[in-house]
Amino acid sequence: MSNTFGTLFRYTSFGESHGTAIGGVIDGCPSNVKLDMKLIQREVDRRRPGQSDLTTTRTEADTVEFLSGIFEGKTTGAPIAFIIRNTQQRSDDYEHLKDIFRPSHADFTYQQKYGWRDYRGGGRASARETAVRVIVGAVAKQFLANKGIEIHAYTSQIGAIALDKTTAINFDAIENNEVRCPDATTAAKMADCIRTVKADGDSIGGIVSCKILNVPLGLGEPIYSKFESQLAMAMLSINAAKGFDYGSGFDNVALKGSEMNDAFVIKNGKIATATNYSGGIQGGISNGEEISFRVVFKATPTISKKQNTINSNGKQIELQAHGRHDPCVVPRAVPVVEAMAAIVTLDLLLLSQANQYG
Amino acid sequence: MSNTFGTLFRYTSFGESHGTAIGGVIDGCPSNVKLDMKLIQREVDRRRPGQSDLTTTRTEADTVEFLSGIFEGKTTGAPIAFIIRNTQQRSDDYEHLKDIFRPSHADFTYQQKYGWRDYRGGGRASARETAVRVIVGAVAKQFLANKGIEIHAYTSQIGAIALDKTTAINFDAIENNEVRCPDATTAAKMADCIRTVKADGDSIGGIVSCKILNVPLGLGEPIYSKFESQLAMAMLSINAAKGFDYGSGFDNVALKGSEMNDAFVIKNGKIATATNYSGGIQGGISNGEEISFRVVFKATPTISKKQNTINSNGKQIELQAHGRHDPCVVPRAVPVVEAMAAIVTLDLLLLSQANQYG
Amino acid sequence: MSNTFGTLFRYTSFGESHGTAIGGVIDGCPSNVKLDMKLIQREVDRRRPGQSDLTTTRTEADTVEFLSGIFEGKTTGAPIAFIIRNTQQRSDDYEHLKDIFRPSHADFTYQQKYGWRDYRGGGRASARETAVRVIVGAVAKQFLANKGIEIHAYTSQIGAIALDKTTAINFDAIENNEVRCPDATTAAKMADCIRTVKADGDSIGGIVSCKILNVPLGLGEPIYSKFESQLAMAMLSINAAKGFDYGSGFDNVALKGSEMNDAFVIKNGKIATATNYSGGIQGGISNGEEISFRVVFKATPTISKKQNTINSNGKQIELQAHGRHDPCVVPRAVPVVEAMAAIVTLDLLLLSQANQYG
Amino acid sequence: MSNTFGTLFRYTSFGESHGTAIGGVIDGCPSNVKLDMKLIQREVDRRRPGQSDLTTTRTEADTVEFLSGIFEGKTTGAPIAFIIRNTQQRSDDYEHLKDIFRPSHADFTYQQKYGWRDYRGGGRASARETAVRVIVGAVAKQFLANKGIEIHAYTSQIGAIALDKTTAINFDAIENNEVRCPDATTAAKMADCIRTVKADGDSIGGIVSCKILNVPLGLGEPIYSKFESQLAMAMLSINAAKGFDYGSGFDNVALKGSEMNDAFVIKNGKIATATNYSGGIQGGISNGEEISFRVVFKATPTISKKQNTINSNGKQIELQAHGRHDPCVVPRAVPVVEAMAAIVTLDLLLLSQANQYG
Repeated sequence: MSNTFGTLFRYTSFGESHGTAIGGVIDGCPSNVKLDMKLIQREVDRRRPGQSDLTTTRTEADTVEFLSGIFEGKTTGAPIAFIIRNTQQRSDDYEHLKDIFRPSHADFTYQQKYGWRDYRGGGRASARETAVRVIVGAVAKQFLANKGIEIHAYTSQIGAIALDKTTAINFDAIENNEVRCPDATTAAKMADCIRTVKADGDSIGGIVSCKILNVPLGLGEPIYSKFESQLAMAMLSINAAKGFDYGSGFDNVALKGSEMNDAFVIKNGKIATATNYSGGIQGGISNGEEISFRVVFKATPTISKKQNTINSNGKQIELQAHGRHDPCVVPRAVPVVEAMAAIVTLDLLLLSQANQYG
Repeated sequence: MSNTFGTLFRYTSFGESHGTAIGGVIDGCPSNVKLDMKLIQREVDRRRPGQSDLTTTRTEADTVEFLSGIFEGKTTGAPIAFIIRNTQQRSDDYEHLKDIFRPSHADFTYQQKYGWRDYRGGGRASARETAVRVIVGAVAKQFLANKGIEIHAYTSQIGAIALDKTTAINFDAIENNEVRCPDATTAAKMADCIRTVKADGDSIGGIVSCKILNVPLGLGEPIYSKFESQLAMAMLSINAAKGFDYGSGFDNVALKGSEMNDAFVIKNGKIATATNYSGGIQGGISNGEEISFRVVFKATPTISKKQNTINSNGKQIELQAHGRHDPCVVPRAVPVVEAMAAIVTLDLLLLSQANQYG
Repeated sequence: MSNTFGTLFRYTSFGESHGTAIGGVIDGCPSNVKLDMKLIQREVDRRRPGQSDLTTTRTEADTVEFLSGIFEGKTTGAPIAFIIRNTQQRSDDYEHLKDIFRPSHADFTYQQKYGWRDYRGGGRASARETAVRVIVGAVAKQFLANKGIEIHAYTSQIGAIALDKTTAINFDAIENNEVRCPDATTAAKMADCIRTVKADGDSIGGIVSCKILNVPLGLGEPIYSKFESQLAMAMLSINAAKGFDYGSGFDNVALKGSEMNDAFVIKNGKIATATNYSGGIQGGISNGEEISFRVVFKATPTISKKQNTINSNGKQIELQAHGRHDPCVVPRAVPVVEAMAAIVTLDLLLLSQANQYG
Repeated sequence: MSNTFGTLFRYTSFGESHGTAIGGVIDGCPSNVKLDMKLIQREVDRRRPGQSDLTTTRTEADTVEFLSGIFEGKTTGAPIAFIIRNTQQRSDDYEHLKDIFRPSHADFTYQQKYGWRDYRGGGRASARETAVRVIVGAVAKQFLANKGIEIHAYTSQIGAIALDKTTAINFDAIENNEVRCPDATTAAKMADCIRTVKADGDSIGGIVSCKILNVPLGLGEPIYSKFESQLAMAMLSINAAKGFDYGSGFDNVALKGSEMNDAFVIKNGKIATATNYSGGIQGGISNGEEISFRVVFKATPTISKKQNTINSNGKQIELQAHGRHDPCVVPRAVPVVEAMAAIVTLDLLLLSQANQYG
């Protein structure tokens, strides 16, 4: 297992879906900085299960208890530990899955790698772990906000319904609807799509887009900790993520160099680029432009439709899931993508401070 | 800078495009294993500049000298250091670029991050660094081959010309043409495309697809060193890479759960999956199926066409590049993708051995 | 801050002396191994404050609550998180120390490094953190015990009272007295010494010796993770530790090579050494002999005697401590030394498994 | 193997005693800083074999060739690689040792751990590797010197001949004699002692003391990367090192708290300590006082006297060494201790910069 992420701003995550608690420990948090606890809880609530009819019916209060590293509302430089007690475990729901390998879940690989497994609700492999990321990200965001850095993720595609690429993104509109798409008309279509697959006992995936604004020039550590490689690692560690691209990405593969090169120009007295096919990163280092990337998520593997699979005795069986689950993870993945982006950005910010000399 | 990659099988890379030498040090190589030096040089030759009219005209012999860690043809467990002396530097070619920020290159960000820069041929940011990866990968491949693991990358798209997804891939045909596309007809079209943009002083990008065969069940360290997140980090660290996906990826985003779930079945007496939308990885852990991923590369930013840009005095200038460069990096990126895949796989293999207990 | 220790068997520690809780997260624990929870609590009790009149009068139940990573009494391979709630905080005891830099404590350096500090009972710098190490060590010991590896630390010196070096050590006698010295007569003198300094409002230091038995040949990762360098780092990270040596150490510095070379001989059909000045480690690697090292601890800086010092306004003041404290940390350091030795040994054991190949 | 040292200022070492070359790669070097190459060579010469009749007769020019990371005499932020070609290998000298396990050497453990070994001159286990440390240290020292930080190590004991602890240390006198003891009279006795054991075909050990001056307040990362634990790890990684202590150390174990507590006082308008039993470190963090530590080295295991040992067939044999070797490693260990101290200090300095925020 490797449950630690980050180099200087670094956290360790723990906890199973239906265990006693989930939680984390943040190490490397700069000291003497005020933390707004309400902001942290607000981010947790954005990811919380049961927030709308588009998500799982498991309802967890997800109340965060901080155990260390904060004194009189400020960071001390000591590790910040926190836990969320699991209150809505219904492990009995999973008893019938004890010996079954659910298709496209981690049951089979965990069983084989670890010799046995905590089968309750996916155990450690459950997306419940992402609550930890959101809390760490909410801490990171506050440090970044002090530097003027903002992070905005949103749903840009659900199934075949995609936000028009020419749409100007209104970040303030993202939270206006339950799918977290900044365009109301597209959002409505996306919600319909999710409701339709849900009614059919099925599931659907989509794409989260993310922008990081006001990143200072010079973040990213070539060659192997480039900004984009750190983002890619972070995003692909999220449950159900199947791909990552940034800047021109996959969609502009047919463009020629002369079409996608970002000419340097002077804007507001500063060197800037006329276009941003580079996605705000050149040579692995932020260039001062908006950082722009996408993450694709597959359809949730848990569906109510009957499926054929194998049990641990190698016998073919028919499976029909009973557990509570999301028909589409994308809306709840939006705050998780933001969190991981915040963690990567703060870590690279601290690393860039270390390098400054003389 | 962060020039080390890997956890247990780990290497550090060094060297600039037009410095004395490039090279690397591999640490964590299992001992007492025979290395075939000719195989290593063969891999280096696949990446070597000047191998066809589709690549840069810089011709480097790229002869690898090993300095340590190998005794009587076998690994000793000590670090394996190697260098390639640069012989074809023409730094004068770059003297005129000393004060110019080339569009979509790393000149501007390196200058700003490090306070100044080695401007000769891109310095550390040059793709020449990937020769180091190929050597390390060639070492890793030999260890993997001993376990029966094979890695095959190929060009699946150049500009708008894509290999048909239904084409059965003949791995033996990959090296039959200079674009490294296993389908001869498509390869010819791709080569034409590259020649056309080259003739026009322009450049083009594309996609490399990669398959890892016979990976044992159980590689990958959840949560933050999942097989896919390690691959994503590795691939996005390659020069000009703009995105990564695996299994169903970006292209199958409209599929429902019932359409993309991989049913478990018994094949040859073993648990296997009927389909492979999971791309050989479930819950971050290899499931015994073929691992399948893609990497998209942008068009080379160096083009012969005139471009507007800014010099270090903030003055707008017109740039016309004279250096030797590739009109398309994709064919030479194929061995680099394989190398990084080999390094990630061997590292996870060693990690999985560590975890075995009792 | 750097609150993580270990490479493959790795833990992160958190918590302040007078905060909500202390605790830790163990990552990299091999899966599918039964844990004896009573053994863990027993180790915690060996370190617990208030266990005899030689220790601090703070009495903490120190009950360990495990939050994750264990299911049906066995490890799952997921991170093992645990907490101990602080119950006997008397932060008011420390209110008067808020602006005072206690001599030879961490108050001054924490204040300067972090900009401010949690002044309650030393905050993060308190030796209360070592309870976390004992818990992690108790987990590690169980894995080691399964391989036949035993760890025995004991008090070999208190102030000027030293265990005779020629004394045969009876490991079973260590816990027979409150100073944890295996020789009853010497133990009585040591206890007297501690009581005398305590009565005088003073404190005293000493030496803990430690033996690791049945370590398999081949543990230790040259050059920079040698067994001895990992032990040294681990031991010097313990509060109040001022030095480490192993094998011949400081005391045999006057011996010549011909006097301290360990001749290889055949014992019980195996290659062994006739003497063990090497302390069980050669070239950074365990050689199959008993690993033997010492750690020296200074006198506790908290004393009841009046002392001159400076407050945060730079004004000279007279300090008389009121907090509960140990007159000698050595007896309670014994289980901490064992714990750190166990953690280092298991980590190197897992690393050696990773390296095995073919 | 673990051949990398450091967190932010980090290097990887490679090379065997009788291989093609030894060398290293420094990563994380701050950019845009001028390096004095003559200073580097001067440090290498301090460690060079054959510098006096007290050292081995192997004479190596030890000329350092830099391969990367330096452009026009300044660091670029890219990794700095360097090599020293071995020129005076006489591998034939070691042919007779191929199957012999020399007492208190690493032959036996390397053979067992790695399955076989490069037997020429100790291979990777040779102290020749320390030349790499001296080069890295010489780079680090230049950065530290820019901040006013100085490092001075010296021989304080050879065999039973110890420098009087009350002697004021004149750092300028250290290089005045071949044993590197700042007191001429003691130095002469030490040299005599070494010549006597040498004449007798024997060897002797000793102690190196080291002071780091002008270290800024706040370096060291509690809990597990305390300044002292990093120093301890670094020192115990040096060949033949058997122990480390700092401040009051082993020698003052009988002192009471009231005798060794360092009272805070005002000196030159700044908070300082009246005494320095803390050795410049409190709570793992530098307190602005002189950092003071010691490293003990055993007698070189290579002696000309006949010894009994075992060959790889388990047969008892008589060994008489022919290779060139030092009768006492201590004088040449002095620059190595300084180098490791410099590396640790610069690494902690960069880490402390990372933590600064807002």
